[in-house]
Amino acid sequence: MPISSHQAHTAIDGAESKAREMGLPVVVAVLDAGAHLKAFRRMDGAVLASIDIAIRKASTAVLFQANSEAVWEYCKPGAPAPGLELTNGGLAPFGGGIPLKSPDGQVIGALGVSGGTVAQDVEVAQAGFAAFKALTR
Amino acid sequence: MPISSHQAHTAIDGAESKAREMGLPVVVAVLDAGAHLKAFRRMDGAVLASIDIAIRKASTAVLFQANSEAVWEYCKPGAPAPGLELTNGGLAPFGGGIPLKSPDGQVIGALGVSGGTVAQDVEVAQAGFAAFKALTR
Amino acid sequence: MPISSHQAHTAIDGAESKAREMGLPVVVAVLDAGAHLKAFRRMDGAVLASIDIAIRKASTAVLFQANSEAVWEYCKPGAPAPGLELTNGGLAPFGGGIPLKSPDGQVIGALGVSGGTVAQDVEVAQAGFAAFKALTR
Amino acid sequence: MPISSHQAHTAIDGAESKAREMGLPVVVAVLDAGAHLKAFRRMDGAVLASIDIAIRKASTAVLFQANSEAVWEYCKPGAPAPGLELTNGGLAPFGGGIPLKSPDGQVIGALGVSGGTVAQDVEVAQAGFAAFKALTR
Repeated sequence: MPISSHQAHTAIDGAESKAREMGLPVVVAVLDAGAHLKAFRRMDGAVLASIDIAIRKASTAVLFQANSEAVWEYCKPGAPAPGLELTNGGLAPFGGGIPLKSPDGQVIGALGVSGGTVAQDVEVAQAGFAAFKALTR
Repeated sequence: MPISSHQAHTAIDGAESKAREMGLPVVVAVLDAGAHLKAFRRMDGAVLASIDIAIRKASTAVLFQANSEAVWEYCKPGAPAPGLELTNGGLAPFGGGIPLKSPDGQVIGALGVSGGTVAQDVEVAQAGFAAFKALTR
Repeated sequence: MPISSHQAHTAIDGAESKAREMGLPVVVAVLDAGAHLKAFRRMDGAVLASIDIAIRKASTAVLFQANSEAVWEYCKPGAPAPGLELTNGGLAPFGGGIPLKSPDGQVIGALGVSGGTVAQDVEVAQAGFAAFKALTR
Repeated sequence: MPISSHQAHTAIDGAESKAREMGLPVVVAVLDAGAHLKAFRRMDGAVLASIDIAIRKASTAVLFQANSEAVWEYCKPGAPAPGLELTNGGLAPFGGGIPLKSPDGQVIGALGVSGGTVAQDVEVAQAGFAAFKALTR
C-alpha cells in the first residue's frame, strides 16, 4: 500500500500543531517510498532555506530507511564512507527526517522537518511521526 | 504581503474538491511570488509525472505573470521566440498554471495543476483559483 | 582587452534609457567573451522569467559570435542542425542578444535584453549596443 | 515592497566605492527576497570564481535570513547539522553575504561580495550594507 494523502496530512498536521505550540514556523514535507513528494506545507514565516532542507531530510530518511541523522554515522570523519553525503544529489544527514512505516514494517515514505534548531526540528518531526503512528495503530 | 498558508490551502482545497467531483486524481502545487514552493498535495492515484508538471506550470505562471498556456503563444512554431520553453530550467507552456494576485493586482504566487487532460487540469485549476479569489474578495 | 565595467555599464545605461522611454521594464545582462556575467540590471517591475532569458540571449550571442536570432536559422524546422538549441545548457535563439566587439573586430562580450515582446527587446538591445558603439568609436 | 533598483544600486555603489578605496577588484551581487538576481557588478580585474561566490553568499544570506557566515555555526565540524552546506544547491557559509531589510524588519533581499580575503569581503559588504541602510533611514 502506498502512503495515502490521509496519512501524509495527518503526519503534517501533527508536526504543524507541535510547531505552532513551540511558536516555530517550519516546513514539513512528506515523500512516498520512491522519494517522490506526496504533501508539503511551508508555515508562514519559515525561512526559504527550509524548503530544500525539509525535502532533503525526508529523502535521506526514505533512501536509507533510517532517521536522517543515522546516516551521519557512516560519513562522519573517521567513518568508513567519507563523501556518502555527496551521493543521491546531496543528503541531509542530520536530525529531522523520519521514515514512515506500514504496520507490517514496510517503509512507505518519510517525513522531513526544517525551520528551527536541529533539536527543535527533531521534536516537531517526532510529533508528526506520532500522529502518523496513531493512525495506523 | 507574501501568500499565506491559509490562501494556499484554500486554493488547493478548491482544486481538490473539483478534482474529486470529476473523479480525477491530480497534483496541486502553490508557489509564492519568488517561485518557491508554499504548499503541495498529490491525491492518491495521481501519476508521478504530475509532480514536476504541476510545479512547473505554477512556476511558468509566476515567472511570466500569466496563465501557463499564454506563454505558448510566444514559442509555438512560427512565433517570435522559439526555444523560450527551454529557459528558466524548462517551462510548461500549456494549461493548468494560473497566477494568484492580491486585491491590489500584485502577483503573490501561482497555482499549478496536473493529472488529467489539459482541459481537465484547467478546469481544476480554475476551481482552485475561484476558491482563492473568493477569499480575497 | 576584456570588456570593461565602463563599457558594460554604458551598454546597460543605453538599453535602460530606451526601455524607460518605452515604458517597458526589462532585464539587461552583459557577459564577457567567456560568457561570464559582467554586469546585470533588473528594472523594477520586470517579470522574473526575464532574468534567465536575458542572460541566455547574451550567452547565445557570445557563444556563436552572432545575434541570438541568427542561431535559429541553423535549428529551425528543416534546417541542418535540429536540436542545436538544446546545446550549451539551452540557447535562446530569438532576438535580444547582440555581440559586443572591440574596434578591431574581436568579440569581447554580449548584451542580452528581455522583458517585452521580441521586437521590443531587440529595440532596447540595439539602443544598448549603440551606446556601447559610441564609446569605442 | 520588493527591493528597488535604486536600493540595489545604492548598496552596490557603497560596496564598490569601499573596494576601490582598498584597491580590491570585487564582484557584488544583490538578490531579492526570493533569491533572484536584482543587480550585479563585476569590477575590472576580479577573478571569475567570484561571480558564483558573490551570488551564493547573497543567496545563503537571503535563504537563512542571516549573515552568510552565521550558517557555518550550524554545519562546522561537531555542529548539529553536518552537510547543511550541501543543501539549496550549495551554500557559501562564510563572510560576505548580508541580508537587506526594510525599515519594518522584513528581509527584502541580500548583498553578496567576493574578490578578496574573507575579512576584506566582509568589510566591502558592510560598506554596501551601510549605504543601503542610510537610504532607508
